[in-house]
Amino acid sequence: MDSEVRIVGIKGIPEVSAGAALADLILAAIQAQGEDLRDGDTLVVAQKVVSKAEGSLAELGTVQPSPFARRYGRESGKDPRYVEVILQESRRIVRMDRGHLIAETHHGFVCANAAVDMSNSGGRGVVALLPRDPDRRASELREAVRERLGVDVAVIISDTFGRPWRVGAVNVAVGVAGLEPLLDYVGQQDPCGYVLRSSAIAVADELASAAELVMGKLSRIPVAIIRGYPFQKAPGSARSLVRSPEDDLFR
Amino acid sequence: MDSEVRIVGIKGIPEVSAGAALADLILAAIQAQGEDLRDGDTLVVAQKVVSKAEGSLAELGTVQPSPFARRYGRESGKDPRYVEVILQESRRIVRMDRGHLIAETHHGFVCANAAVDMSNSGGRGVVALLPRDPDRRASELREAVRERLGVDVAVIISDTFGRPWRVGAVNVAVGVAGLEPLLDYVGQQDPCGYVLRSSAIAVADELASAAELVMGKLSRIPVAIIRGYPFQKAPGSARSLVRSPEDDLFR
Repeated sequence: MDSEVRIVGIKGIPEVSAGAALADLILAAIQAQGEDLRDGDTLVVAQKVVSKAEGSLAELGTVQPSPFARRYGRESGKDPRYVEVILQESRRIVRMDRGHLIAETHHGFVCANAAVDMSNSGGRGVVALLPRDPDRRASELREAVRERLGVDVAVIISDTFGRPWRVGAVNVAVGVAGLEPLLDYVGQQDPCGYVLRSSAIAVADELASAAELVMGKLSRIPVAIIRGYPFQKAPGSARSLVRSPEDDLFR
Repeated sequence: MDSEVRIVGIKGIPEVSAGAALADLILAAIQAQGEDLRDGDTLVVAQKVVSKAEGSLAELGTVQPSPFARRYGRESGKDPRYVEVILQESRRIVRMDRGHLIAETHHGFVCANAAVDMSNSGGRGVVALLPRDPDRRASELREAVRERLGVDVAVIISDTFGRPWRVGAVNVAVGVAGLEPLLDYVGQQDPCGYVLRSSAIAVADELASAAELVMGKLSRIPVAIIRGYPFQKAPGSARSLVRSPEDDLFR
């Protein structure tokens, strides 16, 4: 068997507004591009269009910043209303230093600004939040593909997160359906006979990163099809990718 | 233009020993598989074969653990000679807690066990270190491809690193030649006219992660060709991906 993976970016998805039937928009764009979906494909969808479709946006004009948000905004040079939205999306502040605001979202993801994003949000003064339940949205898209096309795909909802120690952000999975996000090698033998002890690969994050190669931030390509990656079938959840507090050396 | 990226895993690279002509082994395997290299391809090579070829290995039988390594080994259940090698590969210990040893390597990479790896090292009692100068190795491979085939490719040397906050390791770039590892959107406008302020995407890491999808740990596929990703040409260095101490909120 040849080891080959193909990643195709899907263009032509129109500006998504609240209440849009996202699955229909995606499937129509795939078809218009002459592509299709097949059993075993992974469909990667940028968080932004999912958030827009479910209306997870905040209009800064309607936000009342708290005194704390006002003070931190002044000190950091961030819009206090933006700070307020970040605080509302946060379960815990991890770091608030040197102009960076690293927060744990209500989902458990640790990222800059609780993943509240000013860009690509559909207009000035509107910021995009993470979807309320990205796993459920992934699952719904997966079901929609099965219903409409009779095809069994995995779905990943992706967002770009920064990392400590390494410069630059990478795309990771914030929602997962239909695949096991971690490939666990523990107990298996490498070709030298060494039994692997602590190796799990976050394949859902690697799939999200691979999709970013065709997505980009400035092109309107919020969807990618990954074909040829033999993922392990499972209900799947991005929660498996969140380190538990007991295991987190960097709280 | 279609947004499409293709990733092909290269099999048939024999067990690599110290002093091996790695470029020749890789090019022969590519040819034997009926593939080729073209201008604009990215060649991703697993750190392990690069380390083996340059002899960056340690035989535990010859290692004299320090008293500190012996004590920590006893407490953590790790082989004290393995701990000693990790300490020798480290510039700084970042965390030493709950059985985890997170270190900054002499290159500046922060990762578990200073990237010293027991698996796939060619035999029991042998551990693989990171290449001394992965950027230089990437550059040499790139030059070799240009000399032998007259083709201009980018080269990434990859290793799997764990991350804080997220479970599982992902492939990242530890050596880079021929491409700009960071895609910087700062100052550019998104489709809504919003000027992006702090967005750089670590594309070298995303390319490394994408390659991992065809590499795997148990299959002997240490090389992948990525075709169709329009990277930005530059001399490149994985040092661009290392966060400076002043900018590191998680020291």
